[in-house]
Amino acid sequence: MVIVKLVLAYEGTDFRGWARQPELRTVEGVLSNALQRIVRGEPELSVAGRTDAGVHARGQVVSFPAPEDTDPERLQRAVNSMLAPEVVVLSASPAPDGFDARHSATAREYRYRIDLGPVPDPFTARYVWHRPGELAVAAMRRAARDLAGEHDFASFGRKPEERGASTVRRLQRLTVSRSGDRLEISARATAFLHQMVRSLVGTLVAAGEGKLDPGSIPGILAARDRGRAGPVAPPHGLTLERVVYGRPLTVPRSRR
Amino acid sequence: MVIVKLVLAYEGTDFRGWARQPELRTVEGVLSNALQRIVRGEPELSVAGRTDAGVHARGQVVSFPAPEDTDPERLQRAVNSMLAPEVVVLSASPAPDGFDARHSATAREYRYRIDLGPVPDPFTARYVWHRPGELAVAAMRRAARDLAGEHDFASFGRKPEERGASTVRRLQRLTVSRSGDRLEISARATAFLHQMVRSLVGTLVAAGEGKLDPGSIPGILAARDRGRAGPVAPPHGLTLERVVYGRPLTVPRSRR
Repeated sequence: MVIVKLVLAYEGTDFRGWARQPELRTVEGVLSNALQRIVRGEPELSVAGRTDAGVHARGQVVSFPAPEDTDPERLQRAVNSMLAPEVVVLSASPAPDGFDARHSATAREYRYRIDLGPVPDPFTARYVWHRPGELAVAAMRRAARDLAGEHDFASFGRKPEERGASTVRRLQRLTVSRSGDRLEISARATAFLHQMVRSLVGTLVAAGEGKLDPGSIPGILAARDRGRAGPVAPPHGLTLERVVYGRPLTVPRSRR
Repeated sequence: MVIVKLVLAYEGTDFRGWARQPELRTVEGVLSNALQRIVRGEPELSVAGRTDAGVHARGQVVSFPAPEDTDPERLQRAVNSMLAPEVVVLSASPAPDGFDARHSATAREYRYRIDLGPVPDPFTARYVWHRPGELAVAAMRRAARDLAGEHDFASFGRKPEERGASTVRRLQRLTVSRSGDRLEISARATAFLHQMVRSLVGTLVAAGEGKLDPGSIPGILAARDRGRAGPVAPPHGLTLERVVYGRPLTVPRSRR
């Protein structure tokens, strides 16, 4: 067997998120179906950055074990001929033994796009949240500074299913950039809680609207109460941009 | 009565073009239906730059007579609440007496977008033609130079329905620009024949592929034979960018 690593981009509008679900159209579902026509049997996919319904990806990483004679480039062409342009395999390559897209990942980067203009743009509306009217960027940045770093983010996301799992995460970056009517929020962490990026975005937007005191972040974090943070921003503005593999985890023990 | 002028943008993927057709979803159809809920009766729409199925617009202009007490800004908000973000009214304003979106227009500007990269981009695929592989831009520009100007374009577009109508048009601009994998072709003329822009684009692409001698344009024009030009490029790469009103036609006789 060989481990194949795929980098995926997709426009999530017409999917019910990544994870396979019976009767629903999901990215994992259509990708699995396509791969089954190429490799024998149902591939066991590992993914970094499972996306919710309506969320997009420009650099999601998936890995799976495939027969030794699998040609990644042919596989890429075959999958793209079935799924592009809605789901596109940007690259396909053999990965070192022991590589696992989810467990080997050392960071995930997301970007949330907001259009502040008076009317929406039909050409970007599927992946940019149209929220007309000004936002106070300085207040958003003040709040973002207090959110960055290692904290218990129980106020900003649902726990993983495992009971008693930790809600402590290290938010390596949370930045707000502005260009004309476009506002973009970038977030990077080793891992995120469920809906955490959208909850951070909703909180920053509330700060930018003057509805939430940007100095209140430490108190919100300490409360460990989802009712204290801002609302969860809509899914369609969110894109998983990149998954980072930068640690010894990606180098298999046997080759050291 | 007052003449209302609307500037429209739309993503044409899910429409069968501009012109109203029974049983089919068209931009004129949905816009007419929305307007009927606001102004009394069915508005008589005049449009500059009727688009074919799958073609988009960022600055199409529509005009219609409306009751004297019509508030253009309220009308804009009401239409957008029904149709945005697929069809967006970018602006609505009263126009001078005698203004007619179609007959007052002095030029139309189109842009055709091509992605030359190896795989499509899911976020632009609805309005950019993915045509992987290099094109010789110098050859395309050479051909474009010979196409610009006043010519009989019978080889490049269908005649209007009227029998014996002229196929002479003045192509004021035909330019090719390149940035990374993105190639854009801009065309401006007082008016175009049906499918003329897509036929010009298909011809330039054939020149860029080396399938058509860029020096053969004068002969193709002289032939007045659609079989001599390149193929018609697919509709979804084409966008009507702007309609120009720059002549005395827009100033009504009564106000001179």
